[in-house]
Amino acid sequence: MPRNDKDVAVVLAGLGQVGKAFARLIAEKSGPVRSRYGLNLRLVGIVRKRGTLYSQEGLDGASLVSEAERPAGRPEAWLKDLPLSDLLGKCKPGVLVDCTPSSIRTREPGLGIIREALCMGWHVATAGQGPRGLEYAGLKEAARRAGVDIRCSAATAAALPTLDVGVISLAGAEVLKIEGILNGTSNYILTRMEEGMSYGQALGEAQAKGIAEPDPSLDVGGWDTACKLVIIANAVLGTAVGLKDVGVEGIDETSDQAVRAAAGQGRAVKLLGGCLKDEAGTGWELRVGPAVLDPDHPLFGVRGTSKGITFTTDTMGAVTVSGGKSDPRGAAAAILKDIINICIL
Amino acid sequence: MPRNDKDVAVVLAGLGQVGKAFARLIAEKSGPVRSRYGLNLRLVGIVRKRGTLYSQEGLDGASLVSEAERPAGRPEAWLKDLPLSDLLGKCKPGVLVDCTPSSIRTREPGLGIIREALCMGWHVATAGQGPRGLEYAGLKEAARRAGVDIRCSAATAAALPTLDVGVISLAGAEVLKIEGILNGTSNYILTRMEEGMSYGQALGEAQAKGIAEPDPSLDVGGWDTACKLVIIANAVLGTAVGLKDVGVEGIDETSDQAVRAAAGQGRAVKLLGGCLKDEAGTGWELRVGPAVLDPDHPLFGVRGTSKGITFTTDTMGAVTVSGGKSDPRGAAAAILKDIINICIL
Repeated sequence: MPRNDKDVAVVLAGLGQVGKAFARLIAEKSGPVRSRYGLNLRLVGIVRKRGTLYSQEGLDGASLVSEAERPAGRPEAWLKDLPLSDLLGKCKPGVLVDCTPSSIRTREPGLGIIREALCMGWHVATAGQGPRGLEYAGLKEAARRAGVDIRCSAATAAALPTLDVGVISLAGAEVLKIEGILNGTSNYILTRMEEGMSYGQALGEAQAKGIAEPDPSLDVGGWDTACKLVIIANAVLGTAVGLKDVGVEGIDETSDQAVRAAAGQGRAVKLLGGCLKDEAGTGWELRVGPAVLDPDHPLFGVRGTSKGITFTTDTMGAVTVSGGKSDPRGAAAAILKDIINICIL
Repeated sequence: MPRNDKDVAVVLAGLGQVGKAFARLIAEKSGPVRSRYGLNLRLVGIVRKRGTLYSQEGLDGASLVSEAERPAGRPEAWLKDLPLSDLLGKCKPGVLVDCTPSSIRTREPGLGIIREALCMGWHVATAGQGPRGLEYAGLKEAARRAGVDIRCSAATAAALPTLDVGVISLAGAEVLKIEGILNGTSNYILTRMEEGMSYGQALGEAQAKGIAEPDPSLDVGGWDTACKLVIIANAVLGTAVGLKDVGVEGIDETSDQAVRAAAGQGRAVKLLGGCLKDEAGTGWELRVGPAVLDPDHPLFGVRGTSKGITFTTDTMGAVTVSGGKSDPRGAAAAILKDIINICIL
C-alpha cells in the first residue's frame, strides 16, 4: 500500500556500552524499520561528556562507534560548546535516547537531560535506572504535560519485556503479586553454586567472563534488582515507592550450603524481587532477597544469566515472561522497541 | 489530576460461555477501569441468535447473564427485528466484541458482524479464531481504511499474551523462530500420560473435568493449535498464510509408550506449534505436532492446562511467555485488555 514514511529524529545521550550498541543497531536496522513500520529513523546527534556531534542528514552510528573506539578518536569533530537545548532545537522533536551512566546513586546527568528533552517536546527512551526509577511520577507527569511519551524498557531488564506485559498485557486485571528474577549476574552465580561451586569461585568465574563487574556489589547485593522492582511497581501497580521502601538482602549473604541443600531437595535458591500485598491488604511490601523455589514455581527453570518475572492476577491467572538477552545489544534492542512503539501510535 | 472520562459504547455479539463471562466481567470491572484508565465502558447492546437487547444508558451484564441462564429467560425483552446496523447506528461508535461461535469451519456469523462493525467505524475485539485467522489481511485492511483497530487476544491463547509480546515487545527485532504450546487440553492430556495414564484414560479424565469437549477432535487433532499459529504468524511475521499451509499432526496419534519413554529420559512430549524458516531461508514452514523437549527447553516446564510460547530473535535472544488462564473468564479478561489498549491510545 502507498504511504509516506514518518521522519523521526533521534538524539543519543551517552556513548558507553549500551550507547555504542544502540548507535550500531540503529544503523543496522534502519532499513527493516523503514520497510516494516514506515519509520525513517535518523540519528541526528550524539551528546557525550567530551562534546556533541550533529548532522541534519543523520550520522552513521556504526562508523562513529568504530572511530570512537580508536585510541585517537576524532575529537576535532566533536563540538565543544553546543548546549543540549540548542542541539534539540535544531530539528523537529523526535526521540531522545538516554544511555548516560546514571546509576542509582548518580541520577545526573540523565535526569537533567531527560527533563530538558521532555520540556522541548521530545519523547524519551531511557536505559537509566537512576532517573527513571527514582523520579518516576515526576517524569511521567512532565511527559504528560508536554504531550509526549517516556519509556524505559532498557532500564527494567532490557530485552525481557517486564513493563509491556505488566502494563499492556494485564490491562484491566488486578495484579495481586509480582515476583521476578531481575538480575542476570546473581542468577548466574547461584546457578553455578547449585552446580557445586563456592560463592567466591562462581563470582570469580562471572567476573572472568565479563558477566559480573569488577565491583559486583550492586548486582550481588540486590540493589540492581531493587531498582528494577521499584520502576516496575510504580508503573504496574501505580505505587509511588522509592528504593528506601524496599527491604534488600543480597546473595552475598547466602551460604554455599543453603544453595546445595536446596538443590539436593530438587529445589533452587533464586534472588527474587517481590511485591506482595501488606498485611492489611491495602498497601504493598517490596522485598529483594534469596528465596527457595519449588520445581513447580514458574521461575524455577530460569537459569544462568536468564531473567524472568511472574505476575499473579485476579482474572488472568499467573503470567510469566522469561528470557531476553541481557547484554548491551539486548538493551539497545529494547530501546529500539520503545522508539518504534512510541512512534507508530 | 483532573480529567474527563472517555465514554466507550460496547456491543457484545454472542452469549455463549465467553460472552457470558465478558458480560459479567464488564459489570465487575467498570469501576476499576474508570478510575485507572479514565474509560467509562457502557455495555449498550447484546446481539444473539434469539434477538437483540439495547439500552442507551447501559445494560447490567451481570444480571442479564443470570436471567439468560434461567430456563424461562426473559425472551420478551429481546427485540426480534433490530438489524445489527440499526443497533450500531444508535450511538457513537465504540467497540464491538465478537464472541459468536465462529469455529475454524464456520466463519459466520462472526465474519459478517465484524465487517459490518468495522465499516460503521467501530473498533473490534474478537474471540473468534475462524474469522480472524482466516481473513486476517482482509480484516486488517478494512480496519485501516475505517481508521479503527481490530484485536484478537482472546483468539490467540486468551490470557496468554502471545500477540502483545510478538508484536509489541519484539518490535524491531527479527523473529527467527516461533514455538508454542497453544492448546491447554492436549497439554493436560500429555501431562497426565507422562504421569502414567493411557491416552484414553487421560482424555476421559479431561472430559469429566470439563477441560476437554465431548468432541475433542479440534484440540487433540492439533487444529486449535494450528488456527492460533496461523493468526500469530500473520500478525508477527507478516505472512499471509492459512490453515491449508500448516502441516498438522495431533496427539491422538502419539503412543503412550513414546510419552513414557521420553519421561524416563527426563524429557517431555509436548504438542508444539512451530514457525520455522524454510530451507531456502526466505519463507516460513508452519507445523503442528508432538515434539520431544529437553529439560533446558524454555517450554519444558509448561504443564497441565498451561500454555506458553517462545520467540527466538536476532537481537533480543529468546523470549518466552507462559501461563495465563484458559477458562472463559481468562478469555473475557483478554477481551477487556484489548478494549482498554484500543481506547487509551
